[in-house]
Amino acid sequence: MPLSPQRAVDELKELRELTSDDSGAQRLAWTDTWLRAREWFAKKLAELPVEHHYDSAGNNWATLRGASKKSLLIGGHLDSVPNGGWLDGSLNILAALEVLRRFASEFNGRPPVTIRIVDWADEEGARFGRSLLGSSAFAGTHSISSDRARTDRSGIKLEDALRHCGVEIDRFAEAEQERKDAAAYIELHIEQGPVLERLDLPLGVVLGTKGVERHIITFHGQEAHSGSTPMSARRDALAAAAKLALEIRDIARRHPDAVCTVGSLKTFPGIATAVVGRCEATLDQRDLDPRILARMYREAQEASHRFAEEEKCTVEWSRLWSIEPVPFHTELLALCEQAVREVSGSFHRLPSGPLHDAAEVSRAGIPTAMMFVQSLRGISHNKIEDTREDHLELSVTALDRLASKTVDWILRQSFEYARNALEN
Amino acid sequence: MPLSPQRAVDELKELRELTSDDSGAQRLAWTDTWLRAREWFAKKLAELPVEHHYDSAGNNWATLRGASKKSLLIGGHLDSVPNGGWLDGSLNILAALEVLRRFASEFNGRPPVTIRIVDWADEEGARFGRSLLGSSAFAGTHSISSDRARTDRSGIKLEDALRHCGVEIDRFAEAEQERKDAAAYIELHIEQGPVLERLDLPLGVVLGTKGVERHIITFHGQEAHSGSTPMSARRDALAAAAKLALEIRDIARRHPDAVCTVGSLKTFPGIATAVVGRCEATLDQRDLDPRILARMYREAQEASHRFAEEEKCTVEWSRLWSIEPVPFHTELLALCEQAVREVSGSFHRLPSGPLHDAAEVSRAGIPTAMMFVQSLRGISHNKIEDTREDHLELSVTALDRLASKTVDWILRQSFEYARNALEN
Repeated sequence: MPLSPQRAVDELKELRELTSDDSGAQRLAWTDTWLRAREWFAKKLAELPVEHHYDSAGNNWATLRGASKKSLLIGGHLDSVPNGGWLDGSLNILAALEVLRRFASEFNGRPPVTIRIVDWADEEGARFGRSLLGSSAFAGTHSISSDRARTDRSGIKLEDALRHCGVEIDRFAEAEQERKDAAAYIELHIEQGPVLERLDLPLGVVLGTKGVERHIITFHGQEAHSGSTPMSARRDALAAAAKLALEIRDIARRHPDAVCTVGSLKTFPGIATAVVGRCEATLDQRDLDPRILARMYREAQEASHRFAEEEKCTVEWSRLWSIEPVPFHTELLALCEQAVREVSGSFHRLPSGPLHDAAEVSRAGIPTAMMFVQSLRGISHNKIEDTREDHLELSVTALDRLASKTVDWILRQSFEYARNALEN
Repeated sequence: MPLSPQRAVDELKELRELTSDDSGAQRLAWTDTWLRAREWFAKKLAELPVEHHYDSAGNNWATLRGASKKSLLIGGHLDSVPNGGWLDGSLNILAALEVLRRFASEFNGRPPVTIRIVDWADEEGARFGRSLLGSSAFAGTHSISSDRARTDRSGIKLEDALRHCGVEIDRFAEAEQERKDAAAYIELHIEQGPVLERLDLPLGVVLGTKGVERHIITFHGQEAHSGSTPMSARRDALAAAAKLALEIRDIARRHPDAVCTVGSLKTFPGIATAVVGRCEATLDQRDLDPRILARMYREAQEASHRFAEEEKCTVEWSRLWSIEPVPFHTELLALCEQAVREVSGSFHRLPSGPLHDAAEVSRAGIPTAMMFVQSLRGISHNKIEDTREDHLELSVTALDRLASKTVDWILRQSFEYARNALEN
């Protein structure tokens, strides 16, 4: 069966039909709609000569055994945010399925190396606030001991939601067993940003995922009556926060790919008739270069203290979350670049601001590469998320090329390893 | 019975004991604690030769009949915000009671003009969000037709809460009858701001209440992923709002007594990982000069449009509320100045940022003056609201002096009126 990019797009539409409503995709992890998506996918797999199982963290594995146990992993995720788009995560899975079909057909069910599709469990973290849940279990970087107490909006515990889907939280770490023989990991994803569209390019090579520093910054001033407190007598916590919200943009702009965002700002008491006594702002900073990330973090801290002093306020920082930058594998990036150039005639290298399961896999020491396809208007996590269909088809072809190149690379690696072993 | 400022302070403490808990004063209008305060006050009045009644809007009147029907009104309010202070509103009532006692004693129960204490109903508006409720009924400026549907946090309707206290909302307007023969109105209040404390002065003469322009300003940008959206591709609604929050301070500082406040700022979707797509800010602008108020309003509008354009956003304004400045009566202000100077040796004229019942009375065309006593740290609407006791006593004495001077002024006015009538 030759590669059919068109079929991947048709199957994406089939999945959308099955798991979306008027507000968008509803494949929230650990819900029945998500399970329905996985059952649908299992039926597709049943037509292929693959072994299919769920690991102890709920990751969904389809394995096409090859002549070598060495495995190429191709990943994605069927889960979506509530009211999500039709492509985020699913494109990867349906493109991978098409690639698997092509390998199975071309090599009569036995490719030179083992090819595995992994549909990661709960990439989005939309229900319990913990993203990359399944891939972190695989990578051994999970935080299940602190996560088990998490609840969703209805008060349902993470532990119970997982059990509903057949996953025992105490056996979570056993998912690490799936790392055995993993020789390389590749992932295709929509960009979820406007860069490729602005460059008028269908495909991009992802350098890695940016590191993130995410903090809550609280300015303390003095609540005061808006009518009776002269301007000169105020200690306005909002003024200090407003200065910071503007300053972090200059901090980011000094570096080409860096971003800094104040996404939430809360005022207390937060009424029209009182000077703001306390102001809480979130700050999210990202860059692929750890030195730049550290520098931006330091600059934001310094600025916050300067603005607090100017406004006679105090300031405190509290880290919400952070992750180091994860650069992808140099040799696989070169292969990805070749694949993209062969298919589309040009390419662009860019870091990923959003995190992806690929980052967890890479942190586990498995050579990893990622490819982006253009997003229209840069919009994702929304029902209007979209990509041109010709671009979707190009991306399936490019992923297939990258898969073939990576299989060859795995074989070369094994050969070199064997030769070195013989020579020594 | 000579004036006893000490007794007024003692009675304030008695009231605090009766109607406060560990969180502060709880004399919320239309509640049982408020009714208890009024019953306590009624017992004090029972010892005096006064007529006592509640008008149809729930205002509480004590009338000491004089030789002339012409009346001097001395006002205040026993209601407080929840967790309020011991002085806001009550100081005025207990000081007025002391003044009434002195008049009753000095003139054997029949002063030259009628002296009336009014304890306004629901000055604070803390339960139903409509301040100056009773005094606006008196002034004929009430908005009961639109206010009747208001509910408190428990869903209790304003109409029902009033009925619980014996007030029929349909008879609200009859409170205007109390304006008959009102010749002047005086009110003492804590400053609720830091100005007198900064000047080290116990007492101040209030020029009037500032006009207020209160608006919600909404900036619309584009929600976008904080990781994948380059700084140059953003339409950040928070950035536009932050610029405005800083700019309105410069707009206010161009005028000596003007204030501008952004007291609430809300971000949507308001999460750490999204550029702010929509930002709602409240703006509260106040000045005693209507031209300055209008200019500040215009400047803020212009600035908001400029910032919206700079940030590729749009902006819309929605008026929450506004009131024109209410300057007090020139001749009564001069008397107030004399009284303050006699008692404390110096005085300062200042506008009031907070609104007071005096503004409603003045709008009804009754000559009005107000006096402030220093607030410690400028803090009010809080259990730590406080004023030095020697200052409280000075304020009672100054109010008494002002009352005497105003009685003389009423007599002079009546005499001049009579002479003019005879001559023409």
